[in-house]
Amino acid sequence: MLFQVNMTVIPPKDMPKEQFDEIKATEKKYAEQLQQQGIWKHLWRVVGQYANVSIFEVKDNAHLHEILMGLPLYPYMEMTVTPLCSHPSSIH
Amino acid sequence: MLFQVNMTVIPPKDMPKEQFDEIKATEKKYAEQLQQQGIWKHLWRVVGQYANVSIFEVKDNAHLHEILMGLPLYPYMEMTVTPLCSHPSSIH
Amino acid sequence: MLFQVNMTVIPPKDMPKEQFDEIKATEKKYAEQLQQQGIWKHLWRVVGQYANVSIFEVKDNAHLHEILMGLPLYPYMEMTVTPLCSHPSSIH
Amino acid sequence: MLFQVNMTVIPPKDMPKEQFDEIKATEKKYAEQLQQQGIWKHLWRVVGQYANVSIFEVKDNAHLHEILMGLPLYPYMEMTVTPLCSHPSSIH
Amino acid sequence: MLFQVNMTVIPPKDMPKEQFDEIKATEKKYAEQLQQQGIWKHLWRVVGQYANVSIFEVKDNAHLHEILMGLPLYPYMEMTVTPLCSHPSSIH
Amino acid sequence: MLFQVNMTVIPPKDMPKEQFDEIKATEKKYAEQLQQQGIWKHLWRVVGQYANVSIFEVKDNAHLHEILMGLPLYPYMEMTVTPLCSHPSSIH
Amino acid sequence: MLFQVNMTVIPPKDMPKEQFDEIKATEKKYAEQLQQQGIWKHLWRVVGQYANVSIFEVKDNAHLHEILMGLPLYPYMEMTVTPLCSHPSSIH
Amino acid sequence: MLFQVNMTVIPPKDMPKEQFDEIKATEKKYAEQLQQQGIWKHLWRVVGQYANVSIFEVKDNAHLHEILMGLPLYPYMEMTVTPLCSHPSSIH
Amino acid sequence: MLFQVNMTVIPPKDMPKEQFDEIKATEKKYAEQLQQQGIWKHLWRVVGQYANVSIFEVKDNAHLHEILMGLPLYPYMEMTVTPLCSHPSSIH
Amino acid sequence: MLFQVNMTVIPPKDMPKEQFDEIKATEKKYAEQLQQQGIWKHLWRVVGQYANVSIFEVKDNAHLHEILMGLPLYPYMEMTVTPLCSHPSSIH
Repeated sequence: MLFQVNMTVIPPKDMPKEQFDEIKATEKKYAEQLQQQGIWKHLWRVVGQYANVSIFEVKDNAHLHEILMGLPLYPYMEMTVTPLCSHPSSIH
Repeated sequence: MLFQVNMTVIPPKDMPKEQFDEIKATEKKYAEQLQQQGIWKHLWRVVGQYANVSIFEVKDNAHLHEILMGLPLYPYMEMTVTPLCSHPSSIH
Repeated sequence: MLFQVNMTVIPPKDMPKEQFDEIKATEKKYAEQLQQQGIWKHLWRVVGQYANVSIFEVKDNAHLHEILMGLPLYPYMEMTVTPLCSHPSSIH
Repeated sequence: MLFQVNMTVIPPKDMPKEQFDEIKATEKKYAEQLQQQGIWKHLWRVVGQYANVSIFEVKDNAHLHEILMGLPLYPYMEMTVTPLCSHPSSIH
Repeated sequence: MLFQVNMTVIPPKDMPKEQFDEIKATEKKYAEQLQQQGIWKHLWRVVGQYANVSIFEVKDNAHLHEILMGLPLYPYMEMTVTPLCSHPSSIH
Repeated sequence: MLFQVNMTVIPPKDMPKEQFDEIKATEKKYAEQLQQQGIWKHLWRVVGQYANVSIFEVKDNAHLHEILMGLPLYPYMEMTVTPLCSHPSSIH
Repeated sequence: MLFQVNMTVIPPKDMPKEQFDEIKATEKKYAEQLQQQGIWKHLWRVVGQYANVSIFEVKDNAHLHEILMGLPLYPYMEMTVTPLCSHPSSIH
Repeated sequence: MLFQVNMTVIPPKDMPKEQFDEIKATEKKYAEQLQQQGIWKHLWRVVGQYANVSIFEVKDNAHLHEILMGLPLYPYMEMTVTPLCSHPSSIH
Repeated sequence: MLFQVNMTVIPPKDMPKEQFDEIKATEKKYAEQLQQQGIWKHLWRVVGQYANVSIFEVKDNAHLHEILMGLPLYPYMEMTVTPLCSHPSSIH
Repeated sequence: MLFQVNMTVIPPKDMPKEQFDEIKATEKKYAEQLQQQGIWKHLWRVVGQYANVSIFEVKDNAHLHEILMGLPLYPYMEMTVTPLCSHPSSIH
């Protein structure tokens, strides 16, 4: 089951750079792991923004919520979630 | 070069159903052709909406504009275009 | 899997009243059937609006899309779809 | 009398985690109590958001206001309140 | 139980003036009757707008919905409904 | 001359609770006084919000401005001001 | 008493040009008369828009409403009304 | 050449009152000087807001920008700038 | 003096294609002429939209207004106008 | 390949003036260098705003993203990015 998730990072103003870099490094590992598992199917950077467009393939709504809540950057992100399904003109 | 394009169809109120169905059939063929050429990389339906989320891979801005203007449904759609690029945490 | 769907009806300006009443009657039957099947779990009227707040329990995104597209009033409604999941403070 | 209430939590930036956890624990008990009393009829998490969709059954407007003001998390939440009533197509 | 209701009239473009005047005359009688019954407590014109600000005192949500749906101008109005209650600093 | 004024309080984050309570107590007295003078004609709480809907009867624009600027909570409020006049369907 | 009024004209799609020109001519005379009376104090065109920014000096809210309702173009305009008063830094 | 400029002051939260009062006093002198020079043609307070509506008569765009940047309160204001020109119905 | 003007074309629904094509042809000539005169300095198409981003160099506000009102497509366009000036970091 | 980029600077509240001035000086040099390379083709100030309108000519989306991320003021700016292409009525 597919969902589009748009994430925009809003870096905390008072956190030391080292601490935030560490969170981002953990996020990167977590993201890579989810991609290898086929859950985080696509991950693109939006040009000129500290933001991404992502496509997730999950078992159900609860599964998606659990994954998004587990993102180390979650407290520093704004998100929109859009449920997707197969398009009649798609050849896949 | 990747772009996300969101398209929402607003069916014309006065057009006979047969005529609009014909336009949609032409659109479907055009969409399938562009997918086979690897240009229209992804095409998903937004749940509950007469709308899609699409990813295009094109040569440049002009190429994308030409393709979108060529859509038979173009006069009956609203669009947003978002330029994308590679994300540092993507494994692809 | 639960979704909140908000629907607002925008009655067509040129349709004879009898024809629209017929569509609404078909919609009513369809809605009652889906409620009896346990799919359309809740259906409330928004006070002062030709609009409802609904909760659907469906198998997956595609299932929800199919149901919403099947609504006789679909061409005359605006919709928002919000995926829901279990809340940690819920006693259910 | 039914109301839909949407609540979004905006955690305070300067509060120690322990103190905020304590407020959340009190909120949880309060929410459970109101559910057991049949006042807080439904409570769902919005996927990917620190937010909920809730349905309250109360005696009147003042009763709802009193309950919402009593939420331990109230100072850290944004709310929308929508009055609901019975829908003619509902089978309940 | 009090509600603020803001109503904006959007006159239908194709209706003959006489027919719309008749609807407005019926609306006026209906409004006067509801005011005499103490239900439509306040009714003010917004300066420079074909709009009003109203305060209704009703038994419950369903009562308000029934009244608003009964307005002859209802199909030609946009509405917002805000539930109110007693203010701690009010002397009434 | 009547005006609707909507006020939303945004409590200052860094002010000690005692100090803010004192401002609110002064505000309450000021509000009661203006009500007794017939200037602050109506004052209602918006359900679920730290906000009110108010109706003021004043001599002119300058009079209203002077009163609103005098509110002890003014620096902690957002306001909208809507000029009102008599409605042709009002029985008052 | 001063008010800023912003007016945007939305020409009716189906009216013959001659008829609309006649309404505009009547509007022009009405506007000139109100300017000569010192009521419509300022009238400027917004660059690139079929819109104006106006300052009215009126006796009270009802007076302004009466004037605006009397504008021959009123049914074809959108308006915003902002009450103004003297600024402490103004030298006038 | 005329421009409408709307300015809303957002007082800095951490600045001592004396320091901000001093900035406001300098602003007042600067505003009076520009009015005496016929550049800041009109200056009105918006009722109930820490905001003004202003009309500037300047030589060109650069002239207006220089003047606005020179406002002592500039860092604490939000602005909108609207180019104006002569209206065909104006008698001036 | 420079202005950015964004124009979006909204083709009239009822006009025969030939008539609209003729208006567009006149617009094209008018646009070319203004470019040759150095007034319409830049003209770009927005990708995926029936819209352009334009830069105009004009004598004053009235000059810009006159030019924009003279556009044959003016009645079928929405516009935003932004006054520009020299940037301190520009090398031109 | 052309893009319009609008940038609005939001100066950090807690940074010493000297430190921010230094960042702005580095930004200026970087902007001048990109202009000399023909990449940052146009750079204009928006009148009355701490904002600019820019036109970039880049190789592709990734190239634009790299340049924008390299702006020393990037963490203190909000941006919108609009892909442009050649307009059929342009004489260039």
